[in-house]
Amino acid sequence: MAKQLTVAVVGATGAVGTTMMEQLAKRKFPVGKLKLLASKRSAGNELEFAGQTYTIEEATPEAFKGVDVALFSAGGSVSLALAPEAAKRGAVVIDNTSAYRMDPEVPLVVPEVNRADIQKHKGIIANPNCSTIQMVAAIEPIRQSFGLKNVIVSTYQAVSGSGVAAIDELRDQSIAWEQGKNVEANVLPVKSDKKHFPIARNVLPQIDVFTENGFTYEEMKMINETKKILHMADLPVAATCVRVPVVSGHSESLYIEVEQAGVTVEQLREVLAKAPGIVVQDDITNQQYPMPLFAEGENEVFVGRIRKDLSNDRGFHLWVVADNLLKGAALNSIQIAETMVEDGLL
Amino acid sequence: MAKQLTVAVVGATGAVGTTMMEQLAKRKFPVGKLKLLASKRSAGNELEFAGQTYTIEEATPEAFKGVDVALFSAGGSVSLALAPEAAKRGAVVIDNTSAYRMDPEVPLVVPEVNRADIQKHKGIIANPNCSTIQMVAAIEPIRQSFGLKNVIVSTYQAVSGSGVAAIDELRDQSIAWEQGKNVEANVLPVKSDKKHFPIARNVLPQIDVFTENGFTYEEMKMINETKKILHMADLPVAATCVRVPVVSGHSESLYIEVEQAGVTVEQLREVLAKAPGIVVQDDITNQQYPMPLFAEGENEVFVGRIRKDLSNDRGFHLWVVADNLLKGAALNSIQIAETMVEDGLL
Repeated sequence: MAKQLTVAVVGATGAVGTTMMEQLAKRKFPVGKLKLLASKRSAGNELEFAGQTYTIEEATPEAFKGVDVALFSAGGSVSLALAPEAAKRGAVVIDNTSAYRMDPEVPLVVPEVNRADIQKHKGIIANPNCSTIQMVAAIEPIRQSFGLKNVIVSTYQAVSGSGVAAIDELRDQSIAWEQGKNVEANVLPVKSDKKHFPIARNVLPQIDVFTENGFTYEEMKMINETKKILHMADLPVAATCVRVPVVSGHSESLYIEVEQAGVTVEQLREVLAKAPGIVVQDDITNQQYPMPLFAEGENEVFVGRIRKDLSNDRGFHLWVVADNLLKGAALNSIQIAETMVEDGLL
Repeated sequence: MAKQLTVAVVGATGAVGTTMMEQLAKRKFPVGKLKLLASKRSAGNELEFAGQTYTIEEATPEAFKGVDVALFSAGGSVSLALAPEAAKRGAVVIDNTSAYRMDPEVPLVVPEVNRADIQKHKGIIANPNCSTIQMVAAIEPIRQSFGLKNVIVSTYQAVSGSGVAAIDELRDQSIAWEQGKNVEANVLPVKSDKKHFPIARNVLPQIDVFTENGFTYEEMKMINETKKILHMADLPVAATCVRVPVVSGHSESLYIEVEQAGVTVEQLREVLAKAPGIVVQDDITNQQYPMPLFAEGENEVFVGRIRKDLSNDRGFHLWVVADNLLKGAALNSIQIAETMVEDGLL
């Protein structure tokens, strides 16, 4: 029997935290003891999970004593304050915020892509941004076989990436719209930003706040994280990140250029079909292609609409869809922990 | 006073036809007599418009006798059958279907981009595809100033591009979804295709049916029409066309490469700000960028999120939004007619 581990979930009441707990149970992760940690405000509250009642404890440095794995998903500032404290007390932190992703001391991991990077961890391992994870999962098998010269992506991201409040807002706005009432916007594009715009019947070309170069943080995450995960600091990557009125499931329109000449669409399909965690849905004669509505609740990254560019022999277009709360967040975090168990690192 | 013209609208009961009639009235086009033509089935029905009652006549070859301008928007087969008959009887046909767009004898016109092409007409002028129009309107001013080497576009297209039935379907599906009822799909992605998928809370990476090369007809329209309108047969253009749950307003994430080195974002903004029919909405410090919800009912093409690529000095990213029923269809058709009046061609 596998060693039973003490697992802490920090931010257990959020959209990702809840999904993490579901995944721990569903995937039979060897949880000996589960600790649910949250802010002082939530401490003392009870949470039902898998037939058991858990009392939420306050996330203090001391709460991590005896914890083997700490799954963080309570915002960057909580991770910045507490992840080093957890690591100091011997826990391996798997952090789902952006706090440590670009820290050169912290591995940024999608197990199917760069599991070897886990070995170099110093107590903290970062889970990449949701839209990055599904993209690198789709391009890594292609890169391995044919090389990679260039990536340009436009995203179609679901509201659940902004949490439960954004899901509620989409629903409320839709109802208001159908009833001919005033549509109020308070959450999207970014809760903390100055202006808010409706997402129902709209698309928002802003995810996260803007950086000085005109790209948003979300776009820069996709650009920088992709280079780090693929160990290709000079890879040209460009991203335009857009929110669409979808509940869960991020979609991506991807243009890539491979190194090798003469690669066929059939070769790309073969390589992707064999890749771990990838499902090829690409039969246009039967209108088969990935869609976010049908990716909801699924673990895999779905790839379709694979086409060779009409002007560039090395250019290919792909359509990549995954559940942003699963492979894009909670599932990938649990898979990092599972990989560590498999590799004897936990 | 301008010469009063006899105008025929073919397909007056459709989403585009109705908008054409609104635009004729709103823009004070010199309509002496308005003839509404439709299929035998609709003939005899009455239609209220601008305080007058019109009886719909059957669209027969003889119905075009005495017509100066015939605005067609009743599907490709109607245009194929009747546009030559109308032209033969002396009418100038402005056709909003895809029937004649790639015909080398037929000018394909966005007045701000290639008004000179109108002069070569032989009775039929084609109105480009909605998603093509707004894209070429945005890139032509850039091409004129800095040259153009490459275009890659991913679209976020509204359901109104598929007609009134698709708008109804989005609404019905949204209501069903909120009430926890079964979501039925009968119209999208393509009414005549085998399978239908929900558009509410979903995005569909299929617009129009597939061609043999794996691209859809919609994608090939954007590719081929752009080359024709810009008179650049060898321009590399790639498109991925996607339907999103938006009522009206197409959005496009555009990557372009210009010929000239060292062009700045500021230069691009200046050139676009001066271009006819373009509004630059690109002030990220105030979260200003184009969105389809706010483009509805507007005549202009809105451009924002203008960024220089981080790896390619000649590469730029733009976000382009327009009302697909106005500039993307009805308005552009009327603007072609207006241009002909201005240039003494009608």
